[in-house]
Amino acid sequence: MATAGKVIRCRAAVAWALGKPLSIEEVEVAPPKAGEVRIKIVATGICHTDDHILKGSLPNVEFPVIPGHEGAGIVESIGEGVTSVKPGDKVIPLCIPQCGECSFCQNPESNCCHLSEPQNLLPDKTSRFSCKGKQIHHFMWVSTFAEYTVVPEYAVAKIDAAAPLDKVCVFGCGFSTGYGAAINTAKVKPGSTCAIFGLGGVGLSAVMGCKAAGASRIIAVDINKDKFAKAKEMGATDCINPRDFKKPIQEVLTEMTGQGVDYSFEAIGHADTMIAALASCNMSTGVCIMIGVLDSGSEISIDPTLLLTGRTWKGTMLGGWKMRECVPKLVSSYLEKKFNSDLLITHTLPFAKLNEGLELLHAGKSIRTVLLF
Amino acid sequence: MATAGKVIRCRAAVAWALGKPLSIEEVEVAPPKAGEVRIKIVATGICHTDDHILKGSLPNVEFPVIPGHEGAGIVESIGEGVTSVKPGDKVIPLCIPQCGECSFCQNPESNCCHLSEPQNLLPDKTSRFSCKGKQIHHFMWVSTFAEYTVVPEYAVAKIDAAAPLDKVCVFGCGFSTGYGAAINTAKVKPGSTCAIFGLGGVGLSAVMGCKAAGASRIIAVDINKDKFAKAKEMGATDCINPRDFKKPIQEVLTEMTGQGVDYSFEAIGHADTMIAALASCNMSTGVCIMIGVLDSGSEISIDPTLLLTGRTWKGTMLGGWKMRECVPKLVSSYLEKKFNSDLLITHTLPFAKLNEGLELLHAGKSIRTVLLF
Repeated sequence: MATAGKVIRCRAAVAWALGKPLSIEEVEVAPPKAGEVRIKIVATGICHTDDHILKGSLPNVEFPVIPGHEGAGIVESIGEGVTSVKPGDKVIPLCIPQCGECSFCQNPESNCCHLSEPQNLLPDKTSRFSCKGKQIHHFMWVSTFAEYTVVPEYAVAKIDAAAPLDKVCVFGCGFSTGYGAAINTAKVKPGSTCAIFGLGGVGLSAVMGCKAAGASRIIAVDINKDKFAKAKEMGATDCINPRDFKKPIQEVLTEMTGQGVDYSFEAIGHADTMIAALASCNMSTGVCIMIGVLDSGSEISIDPTLLLTGRTWKGTMLGGWKMRECVPKLVSSYLEKKFNSDLLITHTLPFAKLNEGLELLHAGKSIRTVLLF
Repeated sequence: MATAGKVIRCRAAVAWALGKPLSIEEVEVAPPKAGEVRIKIVATGICHTDDHILKGSLPNVEFPVIPGHEGAGIVESIGEGVTSVKPGDKVIPLCIPQCGECSFCQNPESNCCHLSEPQNLLPDKTSRFSCKGKQIHHFMWVSTFAEYTVVPEYAVAKIDAAAPLDKVCVFGCGFSTGYGAAINTAKVKPGSTCAIFGLGGVGLSAVMGCKAAGASRIIAVDINKDKFAKAKEMGATDCINPRDFKKPIQEVLTEMTGQGVDYSFEAIGHADTMIAALASCNMSTGVCIMIGVLDSGSEISIDPTLLLTGRTWKGTMLGGWKMRECVPKLVSSYLEKKFNSDLLITHTLPFAKLNEGLELLHAGKSIRTVLLF
C-alpha cells in the first residue's frame, strides 16, 4: 500500500489522564518495526474494560493511552520477518498474545503467554503512537480506538476473508470471554443448571455458551429487567431480579434448583455478587466461574467453608481460549451460524460518536456498541 | 453377644464444656435402635479436629460431647432392619454418611449426603450416650473416643476381616482426607509439580497421594523441620521451611518451579497459608486444594486477581471419597501394600493416656497417635 513504511496521520481516542474523558485527536502512527503488524481498524466494540481504564480501576495502565481492545481490521503493512499475515488480510488484534513457544503456550490447558505483560509499549519498549509531540501508550498492545494500530505478529489472528468486520470484532474480547467461560473454563455439561450474574455483553455470551453446551436450565440474574428479553432470546430459561426478593439471591437460586446450580458465572465485577455467585452453586460439586474484574487493589472476603464442602472457584481470562489459534475458529463457527453473536450488538455508531457509545454503556441501554471508522 | 439389647457401661472421653480438657468417664451406651449399629471401638486416632472441638473452632458442636472420629472396631449388635453388617464384622464408622438415595449420593462426583447434618444426635434426635444422669451428645455421629458407640447403618463401612484395626483406623479421616485430596479432588497428573503446606497426618497423606499419582516433584512445606524426614520417606522430593527465607514462601515456590506449582494443598487451616498456597500455584492452570479448616466464623480476604488469571481454588471434604463404598476399597489397597499409611502412626497409647496423646499433638511430636481400648 502507498502508506507502507510511512507515518500515518489518523484519528484515535486518547485518554490523556486518569478520570479525563476520551478525546478524539489526530495521532501519528509509525510504521511497524520487525515482527510487527500495522492494522487499519475497521470496527471496534466498546467494552466495560475500556471504561475501567478511565476510572483507574485497571492496574498497569499508563497515561496518555489509546484504549480499545475489541477490534477487527485489515493489515495495512508488515514489518520485517512477519510471515503469518500480509497486507490485505482480515485480522483481529489480540489482548492475549500467543508466542507458541513459552511454557504457557505449550501447555494445552493454558491460554496465558509469557509475553503478555507489560503491554503499555511494544516489545522493544517504544510506542508507535504520538500526538502533539507526546508519546502515547498502547493499551494491551491492541489500542483499537485508533484508525491504525501496530501490534506484534504474535498478537494478531488472521481470520476468514468472508468475515464481516463490524460483527466479528466482538470476538476480540466480550463474546470470546463469556462464551469460553462456559465452554472452556466451566466445561458446562449437558443437562446441567447454570446461573449467570450480570447480563452485559460478557454475561449474555456466557448464556449463549451454556446454551451451546446443552445446559437444561439457564438462570439469568440482573437488576436491569430491560436485559431479560435479550437473555431469553439467547437461551436463558429463567430471568430473575435480585431486587424482587427479600432474601439473598443465593438463597433464591438454591430454592429454585434444590441444592444450588451446577455452574455459576459472575460477569459484573462486584465483591458481593462474586460471593453470591459462589454461594449459589451446589455446596459439593458446584463450580463458580469469576469473569468480572474487581477494581484494582480490591479484596474479597469469603467464608472458607463455602469452598471446604467441595465447591470450585475459578477465574477465566478471555474465556480460556488460546486466542491466536482459536479466534479464527470462532469466526468460522460464526460464519457457519453455530451461534448468533450479532445479538450482542445493539448499536452501531460512527467512531466520532465514541463518547455517545460510552454514555449508552453507562446508562445500561446498550449491550455492545460497535464503532465504525 | 451377651450384651446385645442391653445398656453397656464402658469408658469414654467426655468434653463437658467448651475449653475444658477431656475427662475419661464411665458412660452408658444404649442399644442400637432400628437402622443403627453398636460398635466396639478397638482403636482410634487423635486428629486435630478433635482438638478443635475443645477450642470451639468447629461450628454446630453441642456439649457435653464425646469426640473422636478416626476409629475402627467390631460390630457388637445391630438394630432392627440392619442388613449390611452383622455382629463380629470389622467396621469403620464414617463422619460422612452415604445413604445412597439422595441427589448427592446419586451424583458420581459428590461425596456429600443429605443426611449429613446435624450429627449431634442420632437421626431420631436422641442420644445413645449418657453419663452421671446427663445426655451426652454424639460427635459427627461417630464418637470414637468411647469403647462402644452407636451409629446409623448408612454411616458404617464394613471392611476386610484381615484388616489390622490399630492401623486402618486412620482411614476414618486423616489418611483418606489427604490422600483423596490429591487423588480425587486435585486429580494430580503424572509428571506434575506439587506443594503441600503442613506436614501433619493430612498433609503427609497428601504427599503420599501426590506420589501415588505420579507427581515428579513434591515440595513439602512446614515450619517444623522435624517432620521433613518423614515427608521424604513418604515421597517428598524437597522440604522447605518458610522461616529459612526472607521472601514470602509463594515467591520461593514460584522461583523453585519457574511459574508456580501445578497443584498446591493447604493442610493447616490458617488464612495466611491458604492465601500462600493459592498464590504458589501457576497463575494460569494452577489448582489449589484447601483441606485445612479455619476457625468457625473466620473469613479469608483474597485479591481476586489471583483467580482471574485462571487459577482454580477448591475445597475437599474427606478427600472426596464416597466413604461407605470407598473406605473398604482403601483398606483392600492397604492390605495389598499399595501405600504405607502405617508411616503416619508415630505413637500408640492405651486409651487412658488420651490427654498425653493430645499433648504430643500440641507439641508437634506426633503425626498420629492411635489409642487402644
